[in-house]
Amino acid sequence: MRNIKIIIEYDGTKYSGWQMQKNSITIQEELQKAIFKITGERVNIIGAGRTDAGVHAKGQVANFITKSGIPEKQFSWALNSVLKKDIVVKDSQEMPIDFHACFDAKSKIYSYTIYNSVFPPGIMRDYMYHFKYKKMLEIEKIKEAADCFVGTFDFKGFMAAGSSIKNTVRTIYSIEIIENDDIIKILYHGNGFLYKMIRMITGTILYAGINKINIEEILKKLETGNKKILGATAPAHGLCLEKVFYVDTPGSIY
Amino acid sequence: MRNIKIIIEYDGTKYSGWQMQKNSITIQEELQKAIFKITGERVNIIGAGRTDAGVHAKGQVANFITKSGIPEKQFSWALNSVLKKDIVVKDSQEMPIDFHACFDAKSKIYSYTIYNSVFPPGIMRDYMYHFKYKKMLEIEKIKEAADCFVGTFDFKGFMAAGSSIKNTVRTIYSIEIIENDDIIKILYHGNGFLYKMIRMITGTILYAGINKINIEEILKKLETGNKKILGATAPAHGLCLEKVFYVDTPGSIY
Repeated sequence: MRNIKIIIEYDGTKYSGWQMQKNSITIQEELQKAIFKITGERVNIIGAGRTDAGVHAKGQVANFITKSGIPEKQFSWALNSVLKKDIVVKDSQEMPIDFHACFDAKSKIYSYTIYNSVFPPGIMRDYMYHFKYKKMLEIEKIKEAADCFVGTFDFKGFMAAGSSIKNTVRTIYSIEIIENDDIIKILYHGNGFLYKMIRMITGTILYAGINKINIEEILKKLETGNKKILGATAPAHGLCLEKVFYVDTPGSIY
Repeated sequence: MRNIKIIIEYDGTKYSGWQMQKNSITIQEELQKAIFKITGERVNIIGAGRTDAGVHAKGQVANFITKSGIPEKQFSWALNSVLKKDIVVKDSQEMPIDFHACFDAKSKIYSYTIYNSVFPPGIMRDYMYHFKYKKMLEIEKIKEAADCFVGTFDFKGFMAAGSSIKNTVRTIYSIEIIENDDIIKILYHGNGFLYKMIRMITGTILYAGINKINIEEILKKLETGNKKILGATAPAHGLCLEKVFYVDTPGSIY
């Protein structure tokens, strides 16, 4: 038996997220179908993170167990030859048999891209959230709000309903905000993220930027986990899983 | 009579380029239909540049003559309310009656975006040209080749067939190359560009990067206009009209 790790880039626009589910097309299912086509095996592929419908990935990681004798680097080529164009395997590598793409992940970087302009974008509409409040948005307030979330907290106030996770303590190592003309890119690096956590933090940060929520309210929500304190969930299509780290001292991707 | 100037962003993916033609859907036609919807007038809209099928624009400029009493800034809102999502009017302004979006343009910036990786991109596939030669590509050779094109030349060797233009002398003020991970962005700033000129220069520059053409051959092609000297035309979807300048001393958009 061999354990193959793959790195995957995908456009989440047309998919119901990563995880297999009935009556929907998912990334996991497309990959399992592709693996079946090249190996004849029905495998259960394990992803590092479950991205939601519409969320993209440049560096999702997954692994699967196979009896196939395909050389490790050839898996990328073989899988790409049968996958649709919006899912691309960037690399493949044989790992020790106990490697687990999800449990072994030490940290992840996600990006959230905002198009901050009165009118929506004409191009790249599937990859940016249009936030129309331009004149009133204060980037310094966004940065100040973002700083509140850096550290180790019980993020239960920033987890959407529908998750069965018990331990809601997570550490965010850094939140970097990069402005470039009308585009604001937020890079989140943390040891793990709860269901819709980044989208809820992003929505909150943007609210802070237009003075709809203040720092005291954000801190109170973080301390108490009270979901009734005003917040917003930024939409899925601005989010992208950039990179998954399997070492303790990750470098930056930028 | 009033002369309205508009700035337009569009995703060229689904269009047969800017210019009206029979049996095809074009940006010009979509805009003229939108103007008809809001004013009841059949206008001839004049664009600063004729982008080809698949080419995008962030800052195309156009003007049209109207009798409408719509306030100048309201044209953007009104047009966006009837246009499809892949064409967005970013700004509208009333100009002197003799303003002409094409003839008055002093210079333009186009960007060409390359995804340089062995495997194609999974996301943003409509906005980047996949150039798969990764290991053998030398960025210094690309820069050296790009420098050959900066200045005033007769670019007839870099004009595709199908244009009726007589004067093929143009000036390129600068070619800037920005690397970011797997993405190479080339910014061309010039007083005007011939039919497919940027795509032909880009193809040539990339060939230089992989040693398929050398500097001497590029200079010879520029001097003689001999189209038989090896070259390549980079595909349309990597190209984007970034900005049109109507003043002589344009600043940079970056």
